Amino acid sequence: VTADTSLPVPQGSLFGPTNLPYGVFSAGRKPQVGVRIGDSVLAIAQLPGLSQIHQLAEATLNPFLALGPQAWRSVRETLTGLLRDPSQQAQVASHLVPLADVRMHLPLDVADYVDFYSSEYHAANVGRLFRPDAAPLLPNWKHLPVGYHGRAGTVVPSGMDVVRPCGQRKAPDEQSPTYGPSRRLDIEAEVGFVVGVGSELGSRVPVSGFADHVFGVVLVNDWSARDIQSWEYVPLGPFLGKSFATSISAWVTPLAALEHARVAPPPRTQPLLEYLADDPGQPWGLDLELGVSWNGTTVSRPPFASMYWTPAQQVAHMTVNGASLRTGDLFASGTVSGPDRGQYGSFLELSWGGAEPVRLADGSLRTFLEDGDTVTVSASAPGPDGVRIGLGEVTGRIVPARP
Amino acid sequence: VTADTSLPVPQGSLFGPTNLPYGVFSAGRKPQVGVRIGDSVLAIAQLPGLSQIHQLAEATLNPFLALGPQAWRSVRETLTGLLRDPSQQAQVASHLVPLADVRMHLPLDVADYVDFYSSEYHAANVGRLFRPDAAPLLPNWKHLPVGYHGRAGTVVPSGMDVVRPCGQRKAPDEQSPTYGPSRRLDIEAEVGFVVGVGSELGSRVPVSGFADHVFGVVLVNDWSARDIQSWEYVPLGPFLGKSFATSISAWVTPLAALEHARVAPPPRTQPLLEYLADDPGQPWGLDLELGVSWNGTTVSRPPFASMYWTPAQQVAHMTVNGASLRTGDLFASGTVSGPDRGQYGSFLELSWGGAEPVRLADGSLRTFLEDGDTVTVSASAPGPDGVRIGLGEVTGRIVPARP
Repeated sequence: VTADTSLPVPQGSLFGPTNLPYGVFSAGRKPQVGVRIGDSVLAIAQLPGLSQIHQLAEATLNPFLALGPQAWRSVRETLTGLLRDPSQQAQVASHLVPLADVRMHLPLDVADYVDFYSSEYHAANVGRLFRPDAAPLLPNWKHLPVGYHGRAGTVVPSGMDVVRPCGQRKAPDEQSPTYGPSRRLDIEAEVGFVVGVGSELGSRVPVSGFADHVFGVVLVNDWSARDIQSWEYVPLGPFLGKSFATSISAWVTPLAALEHARVAPPPRTQPLLEYLADDPGQPWGLDLELGVSWNGTTVSRPPFASMYWTPAQQVAHMTVNGASLRTGDLFASGTVSGPDRGQYGSFLELSWGGAEPVRLADGSLRTFLEDGDTVTVSASAPGPDGVRIGLGEVTGRIVPARP
Repeated sequence: VTADTSLPVPQGSLFGPTNLPYGVFSAGRKPQVGVRIGDSVLAIAQLPGLSQIHQLAEATLNPFLALGPQAWRSVRETLTGLLRDPSQQAQVASHLVPLADVRMHLPLDVADYVDFYSSEYHAANVGRLFRPDAAPLLPNWKHLPVGYHGRAGTVVPSGMDVVRPCGQRKAPDEQSPTYGPSRRLDIEAEVGFVVGVGSELGSRVPVSGFADHVFGVVLVNDWSARDIQSWEYVPLGPFLGKSFATSISAWVTPLAALEHARVAPPPRTQPLLEYLADDPGQPWGLDLELGVSWNGTTVSRPPFASMYWTPAQQVAHMTVNGASLRTGDLFASGTVSGPDRGQYGSFLELSWGGAEPVRLADGSLRTFLEDGDTVTVSASAPGPDGVRIGLGEVTGRIVPARP
């Protein structure tokens, strides 16, 4: 497959015709579903063969997601066919809008948001930083994918500014907490998974049912106020340290585009209970290479293939107690950190708890986020025929706390 | 005010004309908003003076909640006027349907669900049970209302059966976790608060803004699998131990009905940061007397007035980091426990960790829930003129785990 020259796909673009991530855009009129091609958005709701699918004219992906895997496959096949058909090029081109001319929206109404903690390197780094005299991993970590619910109502689209949160902070050497803006504002570079098809309350989704329910992938920045979090989180977990904002990419990459990225997860060093067993013939590790840019300097390249728990295991675990899934549920991997310093997915780890500042390209030093800082998480994955495909970036800028 | 005799309000009913809780019911046709009077539902969408409010004909309370305090007051005044007007009695009576003839639905689409931990007696009991050699309260507990996000998608209406959850359980003396049905299935008797009017991302709601945003109160049973919870919850908090089901009452009691129940919270034994300061002139402690019935035996009467943190402080805390509220947000108080054994709101406490079984009226002994058990949480509060008003009960029955 080569990109047809009549399509505006720049040489080396990560958004060629084998990628086709979905988003919601507007250009003057009402928001609708679009697919990214190069640096343009294709308004697919008006294309031949798709115009009868009214779910593509909606302002969120949810109605399309709810249609299920057969509809997802059919729409992707129709799109691929149109893009390959020379006689359709003029028709397709007439529905392309440059990205610069559109506004991208939050692609989905988030139902429940769950955040996991599935990188062994991240969990061990956090353990070493906060419990230096104990084993880095807690006893449950290799037995189940640890996770918790986050705030669905504060999931925001890439590009939206993030107000520095205020709250209670107490350093270990302080007697009492004080109120004020967070002094240890951090990122967490993560990969999120979007549920299309729900499940029944009281039933469970097996590892093998992953692709029957999950539609695709977003990039996530789970902004984290470490000083608020460390004071509040015992015993019920993170709350205000996370709930002020979680940014996600405008583009949802369908699992169908990631077939060539599927890899086995790392070897298991503890036996797994049967409901979490890997299926070696249908692995759901994903070879995504993330990049974290801090004011334009790439400070880390976290390898998603190093994650201990796969998203298929996360779904199996999340529903093993009979909890139902809904269209629009979003669950994220937890911070993606690899074994090396240049692969850590949080500034807590990159600056080793603030003790070892990071130098940016302009010479400035950083431990945690300063007002005005911009962070962008991007990713790419192997596609067919040796061509890499891109995941839509997630970016956000910190603006000062409100008085 | 006395109940007009032409209205079917039984002598001593807790649901007279000064109560008027809202719910969503159906009787053959499409669900719509109703108000409880005695043992009947008043279909209010067709009443004179209300029929133009199309939000009352919807299948959830959310559209009505979003209208805000002025509309809530106006609808309540219209209802009160109609119920007091002898010339309207026939008209009103024609829109009454016996509760036995209707199906009650989940009253709202839950946006985000937050669960607090605001009973000092409960938190201290849990501390004594799980950390017998340490101070019962953790250091942060008197400085902030500890809370976490729960699963909004598994909030279910009163009366729905609850399937016993399966999951990973590991007793302290076991080497590894095992998979199976929960052996320590518990309840948490709580009071929940329903947000009507949202708030802007990046802004905060002060303690004094409580009634501008919160519409009313539900009763909550936050079912809890203690064995699953105790193995999973470090370090990110409860997840599958809670996410299988949270039951709420079918009826939402408006704050306006609880004016006579407002009381000052207990004296503070630690100074509060300013954003959490109590307003003594506008207290939001609530004198609700809860009752917990286990297969028909009242095993506890938790006093809500003993809660250390008020719902107004919970809202102020929940938004102090700029997190927004949305119509349909539900936040619960945490288990309501008073100082005495007969006032504990969980079976973990009532059976003191399973060591001291509870005897029911039929002579049977219980520690945690058995299959077929039914638990009902009810509550009443002082109303005007010495008449007590009731909150709609929340009930649920445990059915066996699915194979």
